[in-house]
Amino acid sequence: MKRVEFFYDYASTYSYLAHREIEEIAERRGAELVFRPMVLGFVFKATGNSMPAAVPAKAAYMVQDVRRWVRKTGLPFHMPSVFPVNTIRALRGACAALADGTFPAYHHAVMKAYWADDQDIGDAEVLAGIATAAGLDGAALVARCETEAVKAALKKNTDEAVARGVFGAPTFFVGDAMFWGNDRLEFVAEALAE
Amino acid sequence: MKRVEFFYDYASTYSYLAHREIEEIAERRGAELVFRPMVLGFVFKATGNSMPAAVPAKAAYMVQDVRRWVRKTGLPFHMPSVFPVNTIRALRGACAALADGTFPAYHHAVMKAYWADDQDIGDAEVLAGIATAAGLDGAALVARCETEAVKAALKKNTDEAVARGVFGAPTFFVGDAMFWGNDRLEFVAEALAE
Repeated sequence: MKRVEFFYDYASTYSYLAHREIEEIAERRGAELVFRPMVLGFVFKATGNSMPAAVPAKAAYMVQDVRRWVRKTGLPFHMPSVFPVNTIRALRGACAALADGTFPAYHHAVMKAYWADDQDIGDAEVLAGIATAAGLDGAALVARCETEAVKAALKKNTDEAVARGVFGAPTFFVGDAMFWGNDRLEFVAEALAE
Repeated sequence: MKRVEFFYDYASTYSYLAHREIEEIAERRGAELVFRPMVLGFVFKATGNSMPAAVPAKAAYMVQDVRRWVRKTGLPFHMPSVFPVNTIRALRGACAALADGTFPAYHHAVMKAYWADDQDIGDAEVLAGIATAAGLDGAALVARCETEAVKAALKKNTDEAVARGVFGAPTFFVGDAMFWGNDRLEFVAEALAE
């Protein structure tokens, strides 16, 4: 079975813009979609890269660019008041949810809460509330974010991302072929069709 | 008449990858295409941006990415031995050619010489030879690169690029709407259709 890996961070605008389309592509191609939450700030630090918005002219442009992608994808969008946000706990939550089979509900709820509903996903209580509203046991999930197994899972993804050449988000892999950006999903779809 | 501006540098891989497609788009949309050669190194310095290849992981990825765009566009491509190259003279040559109506022949010849035929366009004699082979008076054109009018034209484009928010290449404008990257040509085409 074909397989595509999706390295992302909830703090990454373009990861949000890609998160539904990669699911559609994987489904259409009959490919397994493997979610790899990672700490983008650590990836930037390890590779010498920096967040795009660090260049003021690029930050200003991104407002225009994101608006175009929002229109193209049809995704709901509201620029978060808290940006950038510390997503370590939300990413650990994703690792916990991956381990217990509740990932899709958690993932979609967190993406929407941060990028459409302007909720501060860096706050533990807010995060628990988001998970609970999605039908999960939010308090238990947030508690599990403090376990060594969950912390190690996130660290493993992040270290592996850097080792495999990731420098930004979203990044996709089909085998060893790497694709950076929601604007490369067409190439990802082609790679899955080959 | 609709109008699209194309800010580029001969040193920019993605400008090369865009240079034929933007002509096709402008023609299809019945839009005027305005060429704005600029000094990308100066734009980077003025905006605090840096060349993508400055991050080693990004440089490694770009080899994969460029190969995909080459396949998609069908353009001939050979990674230049001299990279990055000093393109000041080649860009001044573009300004000179724009002023005397010989631009298309010069522009296409320089793009091909550097990105497909591995010629060192930083060298004055090589540049003159490229223009001559394209049917122009290469020696006269290279001599005109030293005139104040031509130097000023390039400086004007570069300063205006920075003033209007450009931070990389290629960058396109349709009115005030700015588009960065060959991967945004679809949005450029849409803007010209509106």
